[in-house]
Amino acid sequence: MTTPPVTANTDHELLASASRRARELTEPLLRDAVARLGPSLGAIGSYHFRWHSRDPAATGKAIRPTMAVLAAEAVGGEPSAALPAAAAVELVHNFSLIHDDLIDGDVLRRGQPAVWKEHGVPAAILLGDALQSEAFAILLGQGGAHAGAAVAARLAASMREVVVGQVEDIRFTERPWTGELAVDVAEYQAMAEAKTGALLGFSASAGALLAGADAATAECFDRLGRSLGLAFQCTDDVLGIWGDPAATGKPVLGDLREGKKTLPIIAALAAEGPARERLVSLVGAEARTEADLRLAAELVEELGGREFAEREAMRHLTGVADCLASLPMPAEIRTTFEALARSLIGRTR
Amino acid sequence: MTTPPVTANTDHELLASASRRARELTEPLLRDAVARLGPSLGAIGSYHFRWHSRDPAATGKAIRPTMAVLAAEAVGGEPSAALPAAAAVELVHNFSLIHDDLIDGDVLRRGQPAVWKEHGVPAAILLGDALQSEAFAILLGQGGAHAGAAVAARLAASMREVVVGQVEDIRFTERPWTGELAVDVAEYQAMAEAKTGALLGFSASAGALLAGADAATAECFDRLGRSLGLAFQCTDDVLGIWGDPAATGKPVLGDLREGKKTLPIIAALAAEGPARERLVSLVGAEARTEADLRLAAELVEELGGREFAEREAMRHLTGVADCLASLPMPAEIRTTFEALARSLIGRTR
Repeated sequence: MTTPPVTANTDHELLASASRRARELTEPLLRDAVARLGPSLGAIGSYHFRWHSRDPAATGKAIRPTMAVLAAEAVGGEPSAALPAAAAVELVHNFSLIHDDLIDGDVLRRGQPAVWKEHGVPAAILLGDALQSEAFAILLGQGGAHAGAAVAARLAASMREVVVGQVEDIRFTERPWTGELAVDVAEYQAMAEAKTGALLGFSASAGALLAGADAATAECFDRLGRSLGLAFQCTDDVLGIWGDPAATGKPVLGDLREGKKTLPIIAALAAEGPARERLVSLVGAEARTEADLRLAAELVEELGGREFAEREAMRHLTGVADCLASLPMPAEIRTTFEALARSLIGRTR
Repeated sequence: MTTPPVTANTDHELLASASRRARELTEPLLRDAVARLGPSLGAIGSYHFRWHSRDPAATGKAIRPTMAVLAAEAVGGEPSAALPAAAAVELVHNFSLIHDDLIDGDVLRRGQPAVWKEHGVPAAILLGDALQSEAFAILLGQGGAHAGAAVAARLAASMREVVVGQVEDIRFTERPWTGELAVDVAEYQAMAEAKTGALLGFSASAGALLAGADAATAECFDRLGRSLGLAFQCTDDVLGIWGDPAATGKPVLGDLREGKKTLPIIAALAAEGPARERLVSLVGAEARTEADLRLAAELVEELGGREFAEREAMRHLTGVADCLASLPMPAEIRTTFEALARSLIGRTR
């Protein structure tokens, strides 16, 4: 990405400031929405959002509200113009986390037991359901502002993509590693764009639309968000195999251990030769030792899977840069978008 | 309810005709919405709706779409005016059934294994989530028609009520039978109105609004739907204890067996005297024989719990009649609404 020379510290300051603007704006709406769910479900919602915590880092990075606010500012609007979209997208993102943790059996979220683990499966299902309808309620005027039917329809379409992407991701686990039914690179990237990119695209495009952007500008912001999501996913897949557990908080060789079909492995399996055959026998094996997993990681690297995923991450980041280059906006907002992009993929460096 | 003398056969014919109008209108939209979820989730959606079945009775009674269509016709509109509301409410009703079956561990739905049982928990969670967002998508213009932000906001508010009602229903099971923390009649009816009435209220009011009704008329239809929901719930609670298993398809004394806090029992426990004390000891007992359950049912009846619930059902039906009386509408539509009300509570007679 072509960027002006900014120090890491400036990156951090710009992002922290944008994130603070987004949080301060949206949190009152989120709290109101959760309070509307009544005392029982409301208390569980507060637990999930960690509003009882004194640790400001506990409440998440608010990347999607930050994107919405930055996009509104980019097209000359006030940060508050993005408010309904920023709050709605944070609600649906959290609804999705609550249901995902249940589906995946993940027991921890933000350093505390996940909602299903602490409050039970019915509460997790119903809280997620309620947060989705509250997101639409806010866009449709029940949060003091009003985004209108067009932005709400965009959210519905993005939600469809997210759910379809999640279903594909689950289906991938049931498909074979090789042969005609194997997952190919294009399918994987379509899944990642739907599951991770669509909601980031919504955040940016809805923020811009609410600040008065025209349709072409909104589409450009949608592309920016999707490219960012894809760049993030490619990077996350590299970290899922080669990431330092101390930095990622995930187990070493985690994705190989879990048998996940991620981009580096899919790309490696698309290569040819004896290394590929050895990799096929390893990923398909019933029992694998630590040495097997390390060998599999080496084979994925030897077959170019790692390099491919890293190159794809850069390609999607270039897509982000292209979007930014084509949109006139204040220099500080542009630099903040770039900082946001670097922060999302920063863990590879 | 004051009704012209209509035969059961006419009731049946009127209702069957209205239900057919509603189904024929909405089913193409429902099929399109499910198809938009892609092949994997779409196939599971088709399974749930039983579109593969040759038995027309398998696909449910479509009460909510029928209410929406009747309300549109009542205010002088075409049945098609209600279309987005009719399709959206059927989608959220089914989303709610899919998640409820999972929460309650119910293994059968419409005579076949429930979605979670047949296709797994992740599929049931994600299909429900997707049907909710498709409901909003249809109201916001992605189904060929457009209901606008006001009707979509009504749906969001109704959905909140449904979920909060479901949470309350679950919480009731954790509360004591007696004392300050016991569930009282008012709380129970508020739960029933939210869980069962809100969506019926949405169906009727949204159908009327889409056919051009003013706000006061829409509120009247909302009240009609809610009263119908409450009358249904009171009747269902009576059947849950005294219903004939051959007619209800539920086990005899089922609600007593499961220890459910339903209206007849709550009302009986609000009485005083020795019969009440005997009932308290029975409902709170760890192990109960069939004779205990039969005795408990007799005590609930002796304490006036059954009569109270039956009287409440009639009171809510009178509410339906009052709404109908205050609204000018074609005689045939009025008679059909009355037939619909009778069919919902008809199983007591």
